[in-house]
This record gives sequence, structure tokens and C-alpha cells, in this order.
Amino acid sequence: MKKSLTVFNEIVEKLLKDEANHPVAEFIASGALFDRLDLELGEEPISDEMLRESLEDLVMTTPRTATNAFFNQLFGGRNDKAVLGDLLSVLLNNSMYTYKAAGPQVGVEKIVLRKVCDLIGWDENSDGTFASGGSMTNLMSMLMARDAKDNDARYHGLSNKLTVYTSEESHYSVPKNAAFSGIGRNQVRYIQVYKFGKMDPEVLEYAIQEDMTAGNIPTLVNATAGTTVLGAFDDIEAISAICQRYDIWLHVDGAYCGSVIFSNRYRHLIRGVEKVDSFSLNAHKMMGTPLTCSLLMVKDKQYLYDSFSNDADYLYQTDHDEFNLGKTSLQCGRRNDALKFWTLWKSVGTKGLEAMVDKQFELAEVARDYVKTHSNYTLHSYDDSISVCFNYKDLPARELCTLLYEHSKLLVGYGSFGKEEFIRLVTINVQNDKEDILNFFQVIEEFVAENKSLFLKPSSVS
Amino acid sequence: MKKSLTVFNEIVEKLLKDEANHPVAEFIASGALFDRLDLELGEEPISDEMLRESLEDLVMTTPRTATNAFFNQLFGGRNDKAVLGDLLSVLLNNSMYTYKAAGPQVGVEKIVLRKVCDLIGWDENSDGTFASGGSMTNLMSMLMARDAKDNDARYHGLSNKLTVYTSEESHYSVPKNAAFSGIGRNQVRYIQVYKFGKMDPEVLEYAIQEDMTAGNIPTLVNATAGTTVLGAFDDIEAISAICQRYDIWLHVDGAYCGSVIFSNRYRHLIRGVEKVDSFSLNAHKMMGTPLTCSLLMVKDKQYLYDSFSNDADYLYQTDHDEFNLGKTSLQCGRRNDALKFWTLWKSVGTKGLEAMVDKQFELAEVARDYVKTHSNYTLHSYDDSISVCFNYKDLPARELCTLLYEHSKLLVGYGSFGKEEFIRLVTINVQNDKEDILNFFQVIEEFVAENKSLFLKPSSVS
Repeated sequence: MKKSLTVFNEIVEKLLKDEANHPVAEFIASGALFDRLDLELGEEPISDEMLRESLEDLVMTTPRTATNAFFNQLFGGRNDKAVLGDLLSVLLNNSMYTYKAAGPQVGVEKIVLRKVCDLIGWDENSDGTFASGGSMTNLMSMLMARDAKDNDARYHGLSNKLTVYTSEESHYSVPKNAAFSGIGRNQVRYIQVYKFGKMDPEVLEYAIQEDMTAGNIPTLVNATAGTTVLGAFDDIEAISAICQRYDIWLHVDGAYCGSVIFSNRYRHLIRGVEKVDSFSLNAHKMMGTPLTCSLLMVKDKQYLYDSFSNDADYLYQTDHDEFNLGKTSLQCGRRNDALKFWTLWKSVGTKGLEAMVDKQFELAEVARDYVKTHSNYTLHSYDDSISVCFNYKDLPARELCTLLYEHSKLLVGYGSFGKEEFIRLVTINVQNDKEDILNFFQVIEEFVAENKSLFLKPSSVS
Repeated sequence: MKKSLTVFNEIVEKLLKDEANHPVAEFIASGALFDRLDLELGEEPISDEMLRESLEDLVMTTPRTATNAFFNQLFGGRNDKAVLGDLLSVLLNNSMYTYKAAGPQVGVEKIVLRKVCDLIGWDENSDGTFASGGSMTNLMSMLMARDAKDNDARYHGLSNKLTVYTSEESHYSVPKNAAFSGIGRNQVRYIQVYKFGKMDPEVLEYAIQEDMTAGNIPTLVNATAGTTVLGAFDDIEAISAICQRYDIWLHVDGAYCGSVIFSNRYRHLIRGVEKVDSFSLNAHKMMGTPLTCSLLMVKDKQYLYDSFSNDADYLYQTDHDEFNLGKTSLQCGRRNDALKFWTLWKSVGTKGLEAMVDKQFELAEVARDYVKTHSNYTLHSYDDSISVCFNYKDLPARELCTLLYEHSKLLVGYGSFGKEEFIRLVTINVQNDKEDILNFFQVIEEFVAENKSLFLKPSSVS
């Protein structure tokens, strides 16, 4: 083990040093990948030196998600306290289903979930679990909503026509999960958004009424706290009133921005969250832990047991259900995704988590200001969001993002809203400062200035 | 980052040293947990020293899954090359959905899957993916089977009565997944096992015919390579002939022992695997990687796309589907679970993986021999398995396992088959040698001898 730890430390040292000078890794086209790198797996063992050489090459050419040039996904940066926790998880290697196998790590998971339930304002009746990503916490909420509405479905199979409501700006996992759960993709109603990319509650209510008239059974409303492109927050108060009127499960998908719950300044963006049935957040997004750290909180924990428990004598051999976390989880064997968030939270305190949230909004403000005050830019997003969407010199966003990537300048993605396609800058990496955000724009400007020929006919590209 | 890495290295050094002397961590009853350890999360930040103290205490009291006293789950040990890969995954923190975000790590995942497909004997039409555990790869196979049989279900919702077949000794995720997928728990037929805990193909065929007569649609047969308790292998050849006759999807759940595919000596246990539709294995079990490393291979990759792809412009911005792994995965954001298996495989070669499999069967042979040749023991399991099930002095297994655990002697679990309940020893940790297995029995014998009073009335406990 010691030798491998030494190799790990040396490779990491080299990576960190190189990242400081080269925030973007060498670009390797997918078609050239297997020629450029030694990825082959052979029959015979190889020497530790040969392994190290191939591994180092692989590590150094892997996209760098922790630097000030990575804005491509809804995560970024490298929080050292969270990394410490996750590295220890690897070494400890507990599976989280039982107290016998995970011991005190069960307490780690439980206290993190308890604290978030407390912040929501829920009592001891509430509980939660970890799943392997935001799509999966959305799936779990859909299954609970389905089972709450149609108790027979999980025993005898689905036969009723259930319907699900989500905004047209929500995450693609909603229709995917509708397919998985037997509800069906076509049973998902995409509710129009109105100002700032928020779901229109009037349209939602109208859709529910129409479905009831048609004999469908409205089952789940999936509201979003931080839509994938614009970072918009649906109006939970208004939607919750409708869900209560029609007895529909309300889930808030806070995968991207549910962590505003940690900030006194920004938690108003999810006002009313205590009234919902379930709420998810990804600490690997705004909280900067390594992937994945996805929390699902449920107001009435009985639903978690009803939809996810299963008897298995060979597994649950000691302690009660409360400490055998497998009774409320989607998975069976499950790595410890809680420890990384615990080490971070323990270290910086709830106030430290708050500061992270506040900083992200501050950086977004810096970016929006820049876009607003520079006439070559057009802003396409709104306040109260850490997604800053814009175009530069009316250049086609899709082409510009790809060129920046292929020239190893920046990793940033594009998105669209209505008819507009634009660059989406996400200020989620709290290791960034104002200068890093300003530098982002400067890199784009210099790249465009130096590569005019690449943009000769912007109008021909779409 | 450097400071946290130093803390990591120091804590690990301390852990490794302590593990060598104390293979079982201090037992902490779940009820005493929050008093014994400082798990609390506060408002204010704490000093690095305070964090370290609490963290070290937590690490040192966490169940030790890597030592020669852990036989409690279907995993164990600590493979240093796999650990190296997984530690690097944490630092690199790529999400595996797109080539743009994961780069060469996509190649790592692809080559691992390709090599396993090759070993199965499948052509370029086959493909695979990683999911977060064996329950999830089983879920994926069930969804593909459902969609293959009832193409409408994923669009309009399930309305047909589908049925699923699995042995009464199979994993509990099958009924759980039947609930999730809308098929329904009661639509699962638990097929009787005959000799050695294998599914009885005659009973299977009879059940299929009965369901067809009753108007059900047989959709999936879930065969098992390594049942959870006995480690038994269903007869894939015989079952596959039946599935072909009735046009039913055949999945082989090899979560526990599918890795016999790496051994020339033991792959006969899954003879016929090239004829099935999907096949899963957990490298975190027999291959000893950190949790989780769950592979699902599919003979016709079109089914993967049909059931799991989704358009998302904001996500898939460069490269084709083949390199954007999110198009065939259950999850969206997904940590890199492939690198740990790649570093191991790269280092030891396929022959090294074979040696690991062979050693596990060798150690099981040592254990079975011991049980057979010592008259105080009764054997309850069979050859060709790495689960060795037995009773000692007719002591109640449940009680004995719990006492060994609460006295920090050994972590081992019990199971049952028919009317018998017994201790299940799993020889999955290849860092163990013959002496470790013999020591396991010695610890039990000494514990029983020294604690006779605890076992005064074995017949009263059940």
C-alpha cells in the first residue's frame, strides 16, 4: 500500500504544479485518443514503472475540472477538506447499507441529513438518504410520488395513467425517470416558463385540471431550484399551494442550486421549501465536494421506507432500521458519499457553507456587470442566478465554445432559451476570484481577436 | 491542498499501522455513537487541529473492511493498485457523461468494457456501462427487458402485465426493481432451486407456460452467477435455451461472482454467457477494487441507447454518441468508477485477474476442507463456490456472529438455506492466505471456549 500511496502523492504533486501553469489540459480529439495514449489492457502484468508512465500520461491529459479555466459543467474547483474526506472514504471502503459494515460512518450520513432537514424546518418525522447523482434523487422522488398516489403499483404493476409536471426548462432526468418508473415519457407535461425562466403556476394549474378532466391522475410536480441553463428558481410558494389543492406530491429538484438553503441571504429563493414533500441538493455542485454527493430529504420518512425498504435477512443482522441505511436507499451496496461533505461542513461550519453560496452569487454579479457594461456583449440571463448567459460580438456560441475547447483555452458550454443560443458561464467554483472571472472574458476576447479568420462567416454557422 | 494531503497521508499511516495489530475496530453500539464520537456539525468553523482530532477518531473506529478479520460482506481487502486509481479519480473529479468533461477517462471506461465484452465472446455490436452498484445494473437490465418486450411502456406508461423470473436464492434487488420499473413486486416469480442452490430450469419453464396461459407476458429471466448466500451459479445454458424458446430477455446477475469470466479454470461456471442478453459483474467484489465498480454488458448496444439515451443540447456539445457516455447510462453526473479497475487490470494483466479468482476458490477449498475434517463443524454449502457456510458445535449462527462482532473478534455474517441457518464465510479477500482462513476458525473456537457462559442455552435462541 505504501508504494502506491507514494505514487499517488507524486503524481498529484506533478498535476497540481502543472495545473497552476496550464489550467487546460492538452486537447486530444476523441478519434486520436487510443493512438495518443497507452490505454490498452494486456494479458501479462507490467512493471510498476510502466504502469506509472501510462497512468501519469493519462492523468496529465485528463480535462482539469478544478482550475480557473473550467466552467463547462455545474461543478468545478477542488475543496481540499472535502477531498480529504473522500480520499479517506476510498481507503476505509465501507458500504453504507448496515451499521455493522459502516459503523460510525452511518452517524456521519445521518447527521448531515438531519442538519439539512433542520435547516428546511422539518421535524423528526423527516429523513433523507444519499443517491448517486441528481437524476437518481429525482427518480426516488418520482417513485415515492407514484407509490403515494397509487399504492398498488409497486405490488401489481402500474395500470393507472399518472401524470407528471415539470417546467420546460427542467432537467432531462424527469422524462427519463418517467420512462424508468413505468409512468411514461408522454405522461410528462412540460409547463411553460414565464419571466426569468420560472414555471408559470397558472399554466401548471390549467394543465392539472385538463388532465383530471381527461381521466389522468396528476401525481408529481417537479419544481426546480436552479434550472440547468438559466439557473432559475421556480416559485415554490405558488406551486405548493396548487399541489396542496389537488393533493399532488411536490418535489424540489435542487441538484444545482438547492444549496442556497445554507445562506441567509439567498434562501429566500427557495421560500416555502418546508411545505414540499421532498427536496434534493447536490453538494458536489455548489458545495464543491468531489462527485457525487447527492442528498434527498423527505418530509415524511414513511414514504422512504414504503418505496425503498426490502427484507434481507442475510444483510440486516444487527441494529434497527434507523441505523441500517439500506432500508431507505435506492441502491444496495453504496459507497460513502457523506464523509466528504461532513469533513467540509465540520471544518468551515454552516457559516462557511453560507460564505460559499454568497461568493458564487457575488462572482455571478461580477460577470453580469461585465457583460452589461461592455457593449460587445449581450446578456441572456437574469439576476438571482449563478448562471450568466451571454453572447460576444454575436458570434455563434456553439462554434465559439468548441473552438475555445479545441484550442485548450477554456472549457465552457452553451445553452439556449427560447430562440437564443448563448454561452453559459457558471460561477460555481469558489476558489475563483473576481480576477478569474474577468480573465475568463479576456481569454475569449483575445482568442477571437487572434483568430478572426475562424469567424469569417458567423451567420453561416448555426 | 498540500496540507490536506499531508493530513490524509498521516491518518492513513496511522490506520494501516493500527490495522496490522487490531484487525477489528473498537465496537461502538449504535445507541452510544453520538456520545462516543464528535460528529456534530456546528455554525462556526473549527481549527484544522480540531477537525483532525475528530476525523482521526472517526477513522480509527470505523469498521475495517480491509483486514483479515472482515468476512462480513461480499467484498474485502484493499488492492493497492485499484486504490491508487480511485484516489486519482477523486482528485481529477471528472463526470463521465461527455468526452468534453472526461476526455481520456472515457477511453479508460470504454476499453475496460470492450475487454469484458471480448471475454464474453461478443462482437462490436455489444457495449456496456458502469452503474452505482449491482442493484442498479440489475435495474438497467430489467428496464431494457421491459422496453424490448413492450416498446410502448416507456412512452405511454406500463399497461401490460409483465412477469419476471428469478431464483428464490437471488438478490433482493429483483423485486425492488420490479416495483421501481412499474412491473410490480407480485409479478416476480421466485423459481425453486434444486441441487446446490441452482434455479430449476424445469420449474422455470413450467412457470413461464402458466403465466402465458394466464395472460401475463414473460419478460425477463434473471439468472445468478453467485447467489448471495450460497454463492451458487445458475445453469445458464439450460436457462438460455428456455429464454430463446419463449423470446425472453436473459440477464445474468454476476454482481458477486461474474468475475469468474477472468479465469480459464472457473469460467465454465458461467458457460453459455455469450448467449445471454446482458451480464453484470461488480469488480468491487471479486476484483477487490474500492466501492463501487459495477459493470453492465449488453449483447446488442441498441437496447442501451433505446432505454437510456436522452437529448440534452446543453450537455452533449462535442463528439459523437460513442464517446458521450451519458447516452447509455442510468445516471447523468457520474463519478469515474472505471479508473480503479483499469489501474488494477493494466498492472496485473488479465492473468493477474485470473490469479485473483483462482486464489479465492483455493481459499474456499481450504475452508471447506477444514469444516469437513473437523467433527465439531457442519458444512451447509457446496463445491464451486467462494461462500463457505457452516455451523460450529450447533451453536445458533445468528447469536455467534453478533457476539463475535460485539466483542470485536471478527466480522462475519449468517445466512440461511431451506430450514438451516449458518455462518457464511466469504473467501473474497485475496490478500488473505491459508493461515488467515485457519486463523478465522481458531478465533471462533477460542471465543466459544472462553465464553461458554454466553452459550449456555443454545436451543433457546432462534
